[in-house]
Amino acid sequence: MAGFALGWSDADGRPGNGDRGKAVRPAVALLSAEAVGGTAESALPGAVAVELVHAFSLVHDDIIDHDEWRRHREALWKAYGVGPALLAGDALLALAVGQLAARPEAIPYLSAALVELVQGQTADMAFESRPWRGPDEVTVEEYTDMAAGKTGGLLGAAAAMGVALGGAPQLADRLWGMGRDLGVAFQIVDDMLGIWGDPAVTGKPVYSDLRREKKTLPVLVALAAGVPAARELSALLTEGDMDEDSLRHAAGLVEEAGGRDAARCLADRYMSSVLEVLDRHLPDAEELRAVCDSVVNRVH
Amino acid sequence: MAGFALGWSDADGRPGNGDRGKAVRPAVALLSAEAVGGTAESALPGAVAVELVHAFSLVHDDIIDHDEWRRHREALWKAYGVGPALLAGDALLALAVGQLAARPEAIPYLSAALVELVQGQTADMAFESRPWRGPDEVTVEEYTDMAAGKTGGLLGAAAAMGVALGGAPQLADRLWGMGRDLGVAFQIVDDMLGIWGDPAVTGKPVYSDLRREKKTLPVLVALAAGVPAARELSALLTEGDMDEDSLRHAAGLVEEAGGRDAARCLADRYMSSVLEVLDRHLPDAEELRAVCDSVVNRVH
Repeated sequence: MAGFALGWSDADGRPGNGDRGKAVRPAVALLSAEAVGGTAESALPGAVAVELVHAFSLVHDDIIDHDEWRRHREALWKAYGVGPALLAGDALLALAVGQLAARPEAIPYLSAALVELVQGQTADMAFESRPWRGPDEVTVEEYTDMAAGKTGGLLGAAAAMGVALGGAPQLADRLWGMGRDLGVAFQIVDDMLGIWGDPAVTGKPVYSDLRREKKTLPVLVALAAGVPAARELSALLTEGDMDEDSLRHAAGLVEEAGGRDAARCLADRYMSSVLEVLDRHLPDAEELRAVCDSVVNRVH
Repeated sequence: MAGFALGWSDADGRPGNGDRGKAVRPAVALLSAEAVGGTAESALPGAVAVELVHAFSLVHDDIIDHDEWRRHREALWKAYGVGPALLAGDALLALAVGQLAARPEAIPYLSAALVELVQGQTADMAFESRPWRGPDEVTVEEYTDMAAGKTGGLLGAAAAMGVALGGAPQLADRLWGMGRDLGVAFQIVDDMLGIWGDPAVTGKPVYSDLRREKKTLPVLVALAAGVPAARELSALLTEGDMDEDSLRHAAGLVEEAGGRDAARCLADRYMSSVLEVLDRHLPDAEELRAVCDSVVNRVH
């Protein structure tokens, strides 16, 4: 089951060429180590740990969100049942902790990322039952806090463990902050792809976030825009229970109200912070910079 | 939700006197540290970590097993829903890892226990779909392996972390093995209480293990006894779908076939190994010995 979750084998355990994801987190860990003059090997336990934690979180998220598809295949719980999938997720996390048993200096970053991850996911889940508009609406600040935890914690851990294991622990806190900003940018782009991305490329059903009333950034900023399209969008979302046509219409209204442009802008702003940290502390880290850039310029 | 899971508050978050469990694992950690001349405080991070991991495992186990009751109250998933409970379990585990961020020497024991725990739980779950009799029946050896992992891993980690944090890391491996034996004895007694214990005391529905076809030790040894009661028991279990009366009858047959005595015997044998290790390496550890003893002489 772990092999299936990691894209190494199909549901019958046969080795195959499943979609193994982008491996952004381990890349960040390895390249961060190299950027401070260490070897990629030195950061390998950290790189493996963050990828295992990422796999764990996807397995549990799909159970929590009832998502049936992941990377063009059935979600693990759909293929094997909820109980076994829950346990396989726990196993992936156990293995992640085990990776660092011999590199204890990296443990604080992993444990901090785990706590952030769970808090971010909890906030994201709680957002779903909040109203679209009114005094209880989700603010952009709440959203970025959620994304910094849910997506940024692990990226921060990847970068911080990378430099710490690579021989520059004094840079770890800076890189941790860089990773959190990168996570916000990453999450915003994910949200955009969830609305305007090609399902054949993303591997997720079209408009699934809108359908599930997920409080994604483009929708939040569109609703707050105070233009006619925002009011129409608000009415449509509040009504709920949308069919394919109204979902497409809603996506159009988000764009018309400026949600797409504003989301892109905010992602770019967080990326500027990321690049500023890199320029200042790791000016020669060309490859690390390229991987970070790829996060906001991707098709899936 | 974590407060509810730990018995600190009710489902509405009001502080209360919930059943907080026996706290055997943290007791083992603290007393192991004292037994080697350390302070209880030195082992506190380890003690907290094992109790948090234990709480995590109960929360996830109840989801996996669809158990609706835990310690005389609703299970966490029953009170809050599967998604939130799953995530609360993850949070408890994240906090456990965080406890050891400043005591990295204890990490290898925690990570080993986590892997054992998940493997043991996986085996236990797989046993449920195995037949009662025949070439695929669950053997006593498979059972003890499962119990050593599922229940013994964390007890082993408690004892090993206790002595390691208390200042005697050279004893950690011995105590790890002691903990695994203690876990097998613990699990066998749990199985016995699941059949002959008072539900008002245990907090679990009567005969729930028998009802769910759990491969518990008393049943396994009863079935293998080759006496008439064993054959009748086998027929009854194979038929399945038992009502209250047949469950009571089945419990009687387990006892008649010698399952109760044999289980008690095997638990005692594992306890002898435990006490042997304690006598040899920690001869003055009166309290630790008493806690271990209480594991096999308890009513809930």
